[in-house]
Order: sequence, then C-alpha cells, then structure tokens
Amino acid sequence: MNSTWLNSPMAEERGRRPGNPQTRDSILEAAIESFVTRGYGGTTIRAVARAAGVDPALVMHFFGSKDKLFEAAIHGTMPVALVIEAIGGDEEHLGERLVRRYLWLWEHPVHGPKLAAVLHAATATPAAAELLKELMSRELLGPIAGTLSHDHAEARALLAASQLLGLALMRYLLKVDPLASMPADLVAAAVAPGIQRYLTGTLSLAEIAAAPR
Amino acid sequence: MNSTWLNSPMAEERGRRPGNPQTRDSILEAAIESFVTRGYGGTTIRAVARAAGVDPALVMHFFGSKDKLFEAAIHGTMPVALVIEAIGGDEEHLGERLVRRYLWLWEHPVHGPKLAAVLHAATATPAAAELLKELMSRELLGPIAGTLSHDHAEARALLAASQLLGLALMRYLLKVDPLASMPADLVAAAVAPGIQRYLTGTLSLAEIAAAPR
Repeated sequence: MNSTWLNSPMAEERGRRPGNPQTRDSILEAAIESFVTRGYGGTTIRAVARAAGVDPALVMHFFGSKDKLFEAAIHGTMPVALVIEAIGGDEEHLGERLVRRYLWLWEHPVHGPKLAAVLHAATATPAAAELLKELMSRELLGPIAGTLSHDHAEARALLAASQLLGLALMRYLLKVDPLASMPADLVAAAVAPGIQRYLTGTLSLAEIAAAPR
Repeated sequence: MNSTWLNSPMAEERGRRPGNPQTRDSILEAAIESFVTRGYGGTTIRAVARAAGVDPALVMHFFGSKDKLFEAAIHGTMPVALVIEAIGGDEEHLGERLVRRYLWLWEHPVHGPKLAAVLHAATATPAAAELLKELMSRELLGPIAGTLSHDHAEARALLAASQLLGLALMRYLLKVDPLASMPADLVAAAVAPGIQRYLTGTLSLAEIAAAPR
C-alpha cells in the first residue's frame, strides 16, 4: 500500500496524526456505529472514513480490509471477557452461571444492542458469519471447552452455545411472547439444566470422534 | 386498484389468463425463487413479475403487497404439515420425534435450502421477521402447545423451538464443527432429552402467568 494518505489534506485539516492510536479508535468507533445501524452489507470503508473524519486510505492502513474492520468491530463489541469471567467456579453450576451472564449481557443497555447488531450482520452476510464463527470458536467456545473435564468438550460447548443462540433469537431479536416477556430469572431457571446437561451430562456422543470432519 | 393488467399485452402474449390459479402459482414460484436467491430485501414486485412473465399489477392483484407475497412464499416453503405430522404419537417421545423430523427437513435437498432462505430473510429484515414470527406462532407453536398436557404449554413449545432454531443456525447456517459434521442421529440423541424436558418436564415456570405480557 502506498502512503499518500500521510499527506492527505483531510487528515491534516482535522489535525489528526495518522499513526495516533486515538485515530484508530475513532475509526473503530465509527465502524461499530455503522455496523450496528447499517449492518455489514450497508457499511463501506469510505463511509466509515467520512464519519471518522479521515481519509479512506487511513482506514485501510489500520485495518487492511472491510472484513478485518468488521473483525475488529466485533472484538471491540463482543463482551467476550465478561462471558469468560463467568466460567470460573464449580463445574456443577457452570450452566447456570453461563446462562445468567448471557441473559444479563443481552439485557445490558450497551452490550445488548451491540450483540443484536453482530448477530444481525452474521445472519445476513456469509462473510460476516464466517468471521463471527472463527472468533466465537477461538475466543468463546475454546475457553469454555477447555474448562470441561468431560470427553467431546468442543461438541458440548457448541450444543450449549446453540441453545443460548436460539434463546437470544427468540427472546431478543424475534421477541416472541411469552418468552420475550418472562423475567430473566425464570428463563435462566428453565434453560440452565439443559445447558448443564450439555456441558457435563451423559450425551452418548461416543461416535463423534469417528464422524467425518 | 384498477385492472389495466387484464389487457396487459405481456399477459396476453404469454397466453396466461389472469384469473388462472396457474398464473398465481407461477408468480409464487418466481417469488420463492427470488426470496431464496436474493433475500427479502433484494426481492421486488417488479422483478418477480418479470420472472413470472406477468404484469406487476397482476402480482399486486393476487398478493396485495410484498409482505403478503413473502407470507405466501413462506407458506409455500415452510413444510409446516411435515412438522405437525410428527406431533402425533405418545407424549414421552414427542421431543425425539420433533428433533428427528426437524433435522430431516433441514437435510432434505428441497426443504433445507428453503428453510435456510426463510431464516436468512427473517434475521436480515424486521418486516420478514415479524411475518415469520406470526406464522410460526400460529401454525407451528400453537399446534405443538395444543397437544401438551402440561401448564405453560406456549412457553414450553417456545423454549423447545429456541433450541431447534439455535441448532439449525449452528449446524446448517454457520456450519460450526464438530456440530455441523456430526451424524444427525447423534445430534438428535444429544438434543432430544432437552426438548422433551422443555415440553413435559419440571420447569418451575409457575410465575410465568404472573409475568407482564
């Protein structure tokens, strides 16, 4: 990539130094805002640059591509650390802790809408789905599977994730009643035992290892 | 609506009589094809009319609006009857029957891609989500809830549906391994007991009736 953006009038005009981490943060903020409001398909490097008050070449310099920008936006959006935090503790109540933390995040005034935006983007666009999938596997399912003392930990974490994902779709995205208006405590009580069973129960998954990958 | 389409040269050219149910079917087929390949947002009355070889006014005559056309397309797409069929039988194995039929449909060469298209459309577009939600509640969750002899039948059916929906997302849309490559039999064995628990197990949902609607 050439570096004509170093002398870009726009960047100079706004008095932002291109190498400045603050500039990177401004771009990322503009990108998250755009992905949340316009989705993955409706977001362009050009529009993000305009919103951040920088040259499009500078966005490319920091992030390289729209996909990488989206990946960074998910990173800056997904409260992965807050889920990981809930893993700690005894294995018998892992399901309950995960469900409670998950519902809390979806109902959080800041995290909730961002999670919804990421899920929207991922279901609407194959490229976004691929990115979300990679991130989810690496940063969320990996650590959860890592704490399990049972066989087929990956499949177990994934089954639990499938229930949590479907729950969010029904309750927070599609908002289907009575599930949407049930108190979170009741939902957690209804769902946690199933999650716990996936994580540590008997699942007859013996043949998984032999299944084609 | 005026009826100039009655004398539309295009309709005459193709030798289709506007009142003909076959014409309606051709339009519906073109609409399903478009919703599947281009999604809800990418589908227009005009393009569907062109693909069906009729005047756009004729599409409006039969369906009234893009939303109604989408609703009819879902109707013509969702194998509701095949799910309902699986309800029949003893209540203790209802979970297993539903899961098996559901996985079979997703893996069916004709039904599978259509289900994926409907789910895509619904997650990408609020209007499509609203339509899917109504149809799902009325034609799928209603009948399932109706067969349950337990309290809170609607909430139970919905919890089961949330697991099935999340499973389809992970396995068929996001295609996350090892869940995506597990044999359907193993997935069914892993998931069915949780579905069964939602439908007929102890859920401590006593407070649901008191929850705000």
